[in-house]
Amino acid sequence: MSEITKQHIKDFSKAIEDGQDAVITEKLHDLHPADIAEVLDFLDFEEARYIVKILDIELAAKVMVELEDDVRDRLIASLTSREIAELVIENIDTDDAADVLAELPQGKKEEVIGLLEDIDHASDLVDLLTYEEDTAGGLMAKELIKVNINWPVPKAIREMRRQAEEVEEVYTIYVVDDKNQLCGKLSLKKLLFNSSLRATIQDIYNPGKLQTVLVDEEAEEVARLMSKYDLVVLPVVDETGTLLGRITIDDVVDVIQEEAERDYQMASGISENVESDDNVFLLTRARLPWLVIGLVGGIFSSRVIALYETELQINPSLAFFMPLIAATGGNVGVQSSAIVVQGLASNTFEFTNLFTKLKKELAVASINAIICSLLVLAYDMLFMNDISLGYTVALALFSVIICASLFGTLVPIALNRLDIDPALATGPFITTANDIIGLIIYFSIGRLMYGI
Amino acid sequence: MSEITKQHIKDFSKAIEDGQDAVITEKLHDLHPADIAEVLDFLDFEEARYIVKILDIELAAKVMVELEDDVRDRLIASLTSREIAELVIENIDTDDAADVLAELPQGKKEEVIGLLEDIDHASDLVDLLTYEEDTAGGLMAKELIKVNINWPVPKAIREMRRQAEEVEEVYTIYVVDDKNQLCGKLSLKKLLFNSSLRATIQDIYNPGKLQTVLVDEEAEEVARLMSKYDLVVLPVVDETGTLLGRITIDDVVDVIQEEAERDYQMASGISENVESDDNVFLLTRARLPWLVIGLVGGIFSSRVIALYETELQINPSLAFFMPLIAATGGNVGVQSSAIVVQGLASNTFEFTNLFTKLKKELAVASINAIICSLLVLAYDMLFMNDISLGYTVALALFSVIICASLFGTLVPIALNRLDIDPALATGPFITTANDIIGLIIYFSIGRLMYGI
Repeated sequence: MSEITKQHIKDFSKAIEDGQDAVITEKLHDLHPADIAEVLDFLDFEEARYIVKILDIELAAKVMVELEDDVRDRLIASLTSREIAELVIENIDTDDAADVLAELPQGKKEEVIGLLEDIDHASDLVDLLTYEEDTAGGLMAKELIKVNINWPVPKAIREMRRQAEEVEEVYTIYVVDDKNQLCGKLSLKKLLFNSSLRATIQDIYNPGKLQTVLVDEEAEEVARLMSKYDLVVLPVVDETGTLLGRITIDDVVDVIQEEAERDYQMASGISENVESDDNVFLLTRARLPWLVIGLVGGIFSSRVIALYETELQINPSLAFFMPLIAATGGNVGVQSSAIVVQGLASNTFEFTNLFTKLKKELAVASINAIICSLLVLAYDMLFMNDISLGYTVALALFSVIICASLFGTLVPIALNRLDIDPALATGPFITTANDIIGLIIYFSIGRLMYGI
Repeated sequence: MSEITKQHIKDFSKAIEDGQDAVITEKLHDLHPADIAEVLDFLDFEEARYIVKILDIELAAKVMVELEDDVRDRLIASLTSREIAELVIENIDTDDAADVLAELPQGKKEEVIGLLEDIDHASDLVDLLTYEEDTAGGLMAKELIKVNINWPVPKAIREMRRQAEEVEEVYTIYVVDDKNQLCGKLSLKKLLFNSSLRATIQDIYNPGKLQTVLVDEEAEEVARLMSKYDLVVLPVVDETGTLLGRITIDDVVDVIQEEAERDYQMASGISENVESDDNVFLLTRARLPWLVIGLVGGIFSSRVIALYETELQINPSLAFFMPLIAATGGNVGVQSSAIVVQGLASNTFEFTNLFTKLKKELAVASINAIICSLLVLAYDMLFMNDISLGYTVALALFSVIICASLFGTLVPIALNRLDIDPALATGPFITTANDIIGLIIYFSIGRLMYGI
């Protein structure tokens, strides 16, 4: 398991510059395709292209699958339709091939499919291309091992041997009837250790209900199911129970990671899936919208504060604690909404009703509010000479924590009911809203306290 | 695949109240252990205990493994050492058993191990208990199928059949030498479809270098490797290459999810791993520390603002834009640090040097800063009568965005170099720090502009 280092990258650049193909091939020899892909991701585009061209076709195809999307798309775009068909599509699994094809312009896509020599492979791909990317159909591969329930064991073994050539890892042998409807599975362990050669599949298969997933189920739900039931592979069926394909855990791990990244980025105010090595334009585009939302909120805050200009003129020290109030409102709101968003994501949320949830959130908020208010009050008593200000800040802080908690809990629940991603509520949106609410509360209390 | 609904939970409560054991067993019959665990998680503790007691021992053990940690710990605590040994430990895989044992008080742990009837199982567990929870050793299970390289195939098949009884899923057959050092693997597919019965393992195994992991490797690194190389199972070895156990992907999916949740919670200002159904005390304890940090920052801000009391008295409208400046600084800081944290997590970060990173971040920040400043300036020109204020706000906003970007980039990098979790930098910490920096910049520019 050799890790790619900066030195590796430099060595490859040097070897490419000098045209030492033998050195490159030698260096790549012991690397896993995922490691070669990592090297290519970090080389210049022309260097990456150079290496792909000198790789053995099957290896090149495996490497293509592991590349970062943007590098792969550029490489693919630089190939002819015939090269794509021969170099890539014919040598990788149908799920990965469909992903590559889906990125091509319509005309080129049809051309590549037309050039495929294996008709079955081509028709599998055409079928896979009909499914949405974020569904079970979009994740599944057509490669699987299945036997007919009526076959005698020797015929089944012959057929399996033939099918096994196409399938990299044999996880499960599916048993189907004449209509291709899923009946159950055949344990490879059982076949290896317990089977009698005279039996038919009917006699030795496991007819127990198999975990399956409908082809139009959402990718996130697929991930939840596979992770909950500790599944390595999950068969995909249509409404009639016909076996369409299978999803393997490695693809689902990617879904889980992407989903986690998206939630994390949303909470951090980044609106598109970007990485630190993306270009300046992409990074700016992902970040600017949230900043502008924050800006609009800030301008709105300034209008709110302007309403209290007189109070500020009479008593400028009111301004001292504006950031404290606004920041605390923002922090509490983000915390509350993050807990709701995680609860919604893990699907454990429907079991308690809205009222119970709010009651609990209110209890947590009250404890935090009392402690924070007392701390601020103590600070004011000890270090400031203005008792009214102390009470104003403490009371406002208490109210802000309570309001921000309820707001932070209700907004993601509401978004979820409206079928909008509740993670939207954890980013700058909730911070900005709570800034404004906090300031209104603070100045209203200030006005009362000072009797202005 | 039946999902647990609120109605399920109610039905079970009712059946338990009425003591209808037959109804309960009937209802549970078709459920996956993970689903039964979900039911127990949502029942009262006494109800959950009732159900565990009437379950068949093997099923009860499987359910225990799937329970939420807190529910399982309470249930285990209510069992005698003999019950734990018989009901749980003897019926689950060594990795899960070690996790259960690790939670017991020292005395009870030793008692349970002493009561185990299977001596091999007991010594495996004692061995597993020596590894840290967050390492490869803490994740691995002892159950695996291995054959000696010198065995003839028939003996190997006999031995495998014996071992297979202990192992739920056969992923890989490991080949070891007389010293138990890992030599390679034997493909089940190959054995099934290609093997000759006269050969020894030496003749048919795959001596290619296997992906392995050292027993003291960190769990996060294990997750990264398995996900990068699309592995379903990963053998664990010590420095001498001795095969110690294996890690399966389902355990690693849990690691990935927990890690993602932790980063997300950190970014949202929640300091412990909590869930929405945890109790009020836990939820409060997870949230209060960040609020207090924010509070201290807020108080510090108030001291900063107090330095400019005269300016505020002369020109209260300076106060209007304080929230805008503070909020934008916070937002930019969180964005910058989140991108660094993700880059560090995906290990793609070492390939560009610090200077290149800062240059890029500066480019993104400059574009965002120019656009945001112009927007604010335009607003001020159109809707406010105070041109100086407009320039002050625009200039301060520009400076704050640049500073917050650099700060947000440098802090997580610095934390990482100091071996502190860089995700710490994305939460309220960076927001608070940027609030303060922002205000200082704003008032300094204000003082210059107004020539006060």
